[in-house]
Amino acid sequence: MMERPQAPASPVASLLPDGTGAAPLPTLLHESPRLNRHLGIRVLLAIETFQLTGSFKFRAALHLAQHVHEPIILAASSGNFGQALACACVLTGKRSIIVMPQNSARVKVDAVRQYGGQIEFVDPRTQTRLDRVNELRAFYPAAYVASAYDDPLVIAGNSSLGRELAERLGPECDHLVTPVGGGGLASGLIEGFRQAGRRIRVIGAEPEIANDAARSLKAGRIVCNDTEPQTIADGARTVSIGQHNWPILRDGLERIVEVPEARIGEAMRLLFELTPVKAEPTGALGLAGLLTAPDTFFGKTVCCIVSGGNVDGDVYMRLVGPGTA
Amino acid sequence: MMERPQAPASPVASLLPDGTGAAPLPTLLHESPRLNRHLGIRVLLAIETFQLTGSFKFRAALHLAQHVHEPIILAASSGNFGQALACACVLTGKRSIIVMPQNSARVKVDAVRQYGGQIEFVDPRTQTRLDRVNELRAFYPAAYVASAYDDPLVIAGNSSLGRELAERLGPECDHLVTPVGGGGLASGLIEGFRQAGRRIRVIGAEPEIANDAARSLKAGRIVCNDTEPQTIADGARTVSIGQHNWPILRDGLERIVEVPEARIGEAMRLLFELTPVKAEPTGALGLAGLLTAPDTFFGKTVCCIVSGGNVDGDVYMRLVGPGTA
Repeated sequence: MMERPQAPASPVASLLPDGTGAAPLPTLLHESPRLNRHLGIRVLLAIETFQLTGSFKFRAALHLAQHVHEPIILAASSGNFGQALACACVLTGKRSIIVMPQNSARVKVDAVRQYGGQIEFVDPRTQTRLDRVNELRAFYPAAYVASAYDDPLVIAGNSSLGRELAERLGPECDHLVTPVGGGGLASGLIEGFRQAGRRIRVIGAEPEIANDAARSLKAGRIVCNDTEPQTIADGARTVSIGQHNWPILRDGLERIVEVPEARIGEAMRLLFELTPVKAEPTGALGLAGLLTAPDTFFGKTVCCIVSGGNVDGDVYMRLVGPGTA
Repeated sequence: MMERPQAPASPVASLLPDGTGAAPLPTLLHESPRLNRHLGIRVLLAIETFQLTGSFKFRAALHLAQHVHEPIILAASSGNFGQALACACVLTGKRSIIVMPQNSARVKVDAVRQYGGQIEFVDPRTQTRLDRVNELRAFYPAAYVASAYDDPLVIAGNSSLGRELAERLGPECDHLVTPVGGGGLASGLIEGFRQAGRRIRVIGAEPEIANDAARSLKAGRIVCNDTEPQTIADGARTVSIGQHNWPILRDGLERIVEVPEARIGEAMRLLFELTPVKAEPTGALGLAGLLTAPDTFFGKTVCCIVSGGNVDGDVYMRLVGPGTA
């Protein structure tokens, strides 16, 4: 009898085909007849949940890892950017150090480790993440400290999605809805369409209780939230949009829809019930924007970004499960 | 102010781009590093959940609708075949009549209606589905009565997935795992690979409590279950494999793995936790087969069919939710 197979101790990259990670995977464009019918318009979902590490963040992380000269990349992230950076670094022969709060969900810690990342914990009761990053920066002088959104390399990495959509979307598609957190994805999309020479109306969707970007657009300057807002869309829990993102968003965003929390769960549920898509809360934020401001999209063909699908089972079941409608 | 958009009363086809339904969508090939790591082998998921109507059944339904001369197609189905046939008929200008048990889940009834199908209920306490179909056949003499698996047109429709995989899978992939219910998908896959002139080892995965196909292979003739087995994989609740499927399975299947019920939930959970895939129980049956017989796949590169993703919220949450591990 043969030996029962054992999972190897090496990072996941050893179980990937050669060439993986040379470029991001193309986004998955999908149109769901039942969702169209429910909304009364045509919606093309641009699904990044099948991207490596399960979210668009891999685009930025790979571009970073391919373009910085430092052998180590250091970042604070309890979410998708950490996984993406860990995987991108393994694929490019670099080392990643991810700062995560000590109370992070076990599944998120496991994911970063499985992608080959080194985790450094921070106790948020005694130290800020920034302090911990600075401490580690002193300890690893050869490290590049990466922001998940406020970095030209991150914007350039995310712009690949914009260029791809500019090429693949039919001419009838004239509206694009995207989640807005720190602004890394939205600014990348705007840049990508600009580079491709294609015009499209880009509309941001931001949680109402984390509406710093919407307020910034109105004020004409970056406005900050007082604290990290506790929206269920954890990818949008940013205090403010980034300085590198701001001028691109200011000039390139058509508007921002402010989304009530309940709409986010509703969007996740609609994706579950009417489409094949498993989305995380931030991933469903674009669709939640469509639900929140239907007049904006009436009669249009809309491309809606589903930015990621990594979600804890308990959060998913609570938002999508029976009795939540 | 503009009017809030209303979902139109017409079937979903009116909200699809021109040309939809001329051919099935290509399957979604996806490799998940974390799933590979968990299993210790390379698994290429061939995901049919993004197929029109959410399962591979659309391949058969479209081929049927395109090739039968009758203007009406009549079928008994409480699951994916009903939705698929309803949609395929709308797209080809035919009419579909779907016989469903009176106690069918509301979401399944809604789905068939939304795809434009006419539903005829049967009260399973007083009448068999076959009797109801025969009653309707007498009432609609112009109807073609379709089986979801035991029909050469169904096998030919499903063979498109085999031909596609034969072309797209790399030469290192020498094993293919597929759910087995009535045998429509497995026989279609075998036929497709044969037509493409490519050899691959095809392994069926069948629920242990619905193991008529495994017993048939051993007996060398079609063996029936006494009653419709109540496996959670509702797509495999068939009394026996079909007569048209049998000779193809007999000659083309390498073996059948008999899957304990608990493995099906485990496979759905792994897909949820480690991949972006939302699978229904029958859709996860192939992966459950991998989990059940790891020795068979040790050291191999395996293509695993995820045949569909249409699942009620309560079933999904019960199998995938917290506390089920």
